Amino acid sequence: MPSNTQDQSVTFNGWASTGTAHLKQWSYHPRPLGPKDVEMEISHCGICGSDIHTITSGWGELKNGPCISGHEIVGKVVAKGDSSHHQIGDLVGVGAMVDSCDDCKECNNGFHQLCLVKGMTYNDTFKDGRGGLTYGGYADRVRVNGEFAFKIPSNISAAEAAPLLCAGVTTYSPLKAHGAGPGKTVGVIGIGGLGHLAIQWAHAMKCDEVVAISTSDNKREESKKLGASKFVNSKNPEEVAAAAKSMDIIICTSFDKNANWGELLQLVANRGKLVLLALPEAPLSIPANALLSREVSIVGSLIGGKEMVQEMLQFASEHNVRPWIEKMPMSDANAAIKRMMEGRPRYRIVMETEAASRA
Amino acid sequence: MPSNTQDQSVTFNGWASTGTAHLKQWSYHPRPLGPKDVEMEISHCGICGSDIHTITSGWGELKNGPCISGHEIVGKVVAKGDSSHHQIGDLVGVGAMVDSCDDCKECNNGFHQLCLVKGMTYNDTFKDGRGGLTYGGYADRVRVNGEFAFKIPSNISAAEAAPLLCAGVTTYSPLKAHGAGPGKTVGVIGIGGLGHLAIQWAHAMKCDEVVAISTSDNKREESKKLGASKFVNSKNPEEVAAAAKSMDIIICTSFDKNANWGELLQLVANRGKLVLLALPEAPLSIPANALLSREVSIVGSLIGGKEMVQEMLQFASEHNVRPWIEKMPMSDANAAIKRMMEGRPRYRIVMETEAASRA
Repeated sequence: MPSNTQDQSVTFNGWASTGTAHLKQWSYHPRPLGPKDVEMEISHCGICGSDIHTITSGWGELKNGPCISGHEIVGKVVAKGDSSHHQIGDLVGVGAMVDSCDDCKECNNGFHQLCLVKGMTYNDTFKDGRGGLTYGGYADRVRVNGEFAFKIPSNISAAEAAPLLCAGVTTYSPLKAHGAGPGKTVGVIGIGGLGHLAIQWAHAMKCDEVVAISTSDNKREESKKLGASKFVNSKNPEEVAAAAKSMDIIICTSFDKNANWGELLQLVANRGKLVLLALPEAPLSIPANALLSREVSIVGSLIGGKEMVQEMLQFASEHNVRPWIEKMPMSDANAAIKRMMEGRPRYRIVMETEAASRA
Repeated sequence: MPSNTQDQSVTFNGWASTGTAHLKQWSYHPRPLGPKDVEMEISHCGICGSDIHTITSGWGELKNGPCISGHEIVGKVVAKGDSSHHQIGDLVGVGAMVDSCDDCKECNNGFHQLCLVKGMTYNDTFKDGRGGLTYGGYADRVRVNGEFAFKIPSNISAAEAAPLLCAGVTTYSPLKAHGAGPGKTVGVIGIGGLGHLAIQWAHAMKCDEVVAISTSDNKREESKKLGASKFVNSKNPEEVAAAAKSMDIIICTSFDKNANWGELLQLVANRGKLVLLALPEAPLSIPANALLSREVSIVGSLIGGKEMVQEMLQFASEHNVRPWIEKMPMSDANAAIKRMMEGRPRYRIVMETEAASRA
């Protein structure tokens, strides 16, 4: 790593993977603070499914050596570049991106997530010409482009804000983009870190019905507390048949490896959409007639642009949408990862650093 | 067949299949002329790919015994029910539907093709409570619900009108529904009966670019005559790579059995759509990341409702969109079917009856 991309005067300390789920304490020198950058003292970081895919090399080998994961980062601004709009002491959050060109068609239209030279929050490089590797939020501090640090509304706690930065916008964005609201029935497949927020958004957007769809019957009661008006056990053929063709938008947050796509698509209303948020490892096997005969769509969706994150935070603030979280100390990062990999959180683990006690 | 669904006073004569591609001359008594019905003296009938799938039992066994296929039907009204809005002598066309409930949400919104009790033009039953089997246009006459017989604009010949009734609306409808027009680039996969019309529509809708995509390099020059501004040979990796991410809407009219969907989806622009019109026999194998990473959609589309057919005919009339056709006498129906199955027409075979000479 060229020394001009490292600020040798400071050291950030985190929990890094070298390609397996076992994290080790590891330190690095961040890149020098640029004019738009902010340095955050991290108080909280959520654990996202993407973190697990990355640190276990499930999505391929790590790019840059030890990887400090984590892209649901909340903390206070403790240093800033001259042209950053943030103030020292602001509580801000960072999601899955820390950089984009801000100059292409996608950026100009608010789809920064589709920018060709975006920088992801970890396991990536900054693309703004100043160099430097990106490291995430399983750490005491982080430096990012302040344009991708978002002020947290005052009525949202730092811990609850963290999952909104990735899980929140990932579920909010497609509901907005595909017209969720009065007159629409929304289904949510998979009631977990993403799905439990999707249900809350759809309920707060005043959709006619919000249907929780899960293979686990023990999510039946919990999904009602989240705002679902119906529950469909996707392993129960009678419940699936009764819900056929009823959902205008289905947000698909998780995959059964043996998912029967023809059957799931039968839940979509005529001219409705199945929105894929999660990325299964194997290709999808789609019976074409399930799309043709009722003019159904399958569409992918990926986090959201800057303005979408800001709108989502404002909406959460005004409509009391909050993730259900379990707090664990970041010093127990490996225990937290293990719990996440076992699928046990209801519904999101947020790790706290020592800074949380000083907040 | 109960006799009250047959008008014994008249006999219609056509070419029927009993489950193979070999058609035989066959006659039937149509159902009695209902108040909304029209009887057409058929002068022309196009041959659609669906006809082949049906008469060869590729889409399943025939439902009602001998099947007179054909749903690109044009002819003059020679009899009408009391409440039909048509006039004797009107030149009208009938597409893939002859009946719908006209009372459901889909019908009320103009999506008659999604009506649950629609009646298809052949190999089906009328659903209006009056009973009767449906028989298509490989015949001298046909009786249909006059609501699904559309007046042909005076500047379109009867022969050229025929393919518009199915191939025309099938390609026009998704281009309209998904926003083809200035500022958009449209791709068309498969330059045949459907594709050669899709190119013409997209060109007439003033799309920025219209890209013909084919495995046959010999379509390169012809596609330009149809209005394509570019050509991509989908078996040429360099041409495919050069066109990556460039098309907002791709109309997919045909399938290679070994189609590489990940590669074809790379042609779609960010947030763009691949519209499926043709129905392959095997499930599609879709790499999910091709949808997620760029927020791409795959969406099915099916003919079009009544108003869409009328709009399409008007658009064809005003913008000089016409199918390229080869005329063959209906008495050579088996030769015409053979030529169609060999993929030789450029681009649509229209069969003429003796009535054509009297038109």
